[in-house]
Amino acid sequence: MYVIVTYDITDDKRLNKVRKVLKKYLYWSQLSTFEGEISKALLAKCMAEVNNIIDLSEDSVYVYEVENPKNIKKKVLGIEKSYMDNFL
Amino acid sequence: MYVIVTYDITDDKRLNKVRKVLKKYLYWSQLSTFEGEISKALLAKCMAEVNNIIDLSEDSVYVYEVENPKNIKKKVLGIEKSYMDNFL
Repeated sequence: MYVIVTYDITDDKRLNKVRKVLKKYLYWSQLSTFEGEISKALLAKCMAEVNNIIDLSEDSVYVYEVENPKNIKKKVLGIEKSYMDNFL
Repeated sequence: MYVIVTYDITDDKRLNKVRKVLKKYLYWSQLSTFEGEISKALLAKCMAEVNNIIDLSEDSVYVYEVENPKNIKKKVLGIEKSYMDNFL
């Protein structure tokens, strides 16, 4: 399936930890957006890791799942970014 | 169709302008994410307005389009946020 993950993490330490986890499974396409194709099993694993890091009363992680990648189209205005090379 | 819009805008003035435009058409669900159901015509109008504001060499706006809203599922970890009442 194709997933888009967006997040608001209020604490920088947790933010970096969440990014480290997401980076293992998905593509870091914008400052607050990861995306990519992933199996259900790996996504569950990824989200379990994220869930262990975030503060459930303050932070927010959204996971948009599209079963068939053909059903989603991405359009870009401006430049297409990537943060995959960023040091964490 | 259902759309998710994420953005990296490097300048605060442009950022606020972009949010003002997106707010007219979509739901502000996370700091850098708007989403919602919208017609193709309105989306085109919205993106034309955004395009006029952003610096195409620095800023980045991603629009993920899903024709049938049934094909996308949203899952939330932590809290579900909303910025719709924020003053701009």
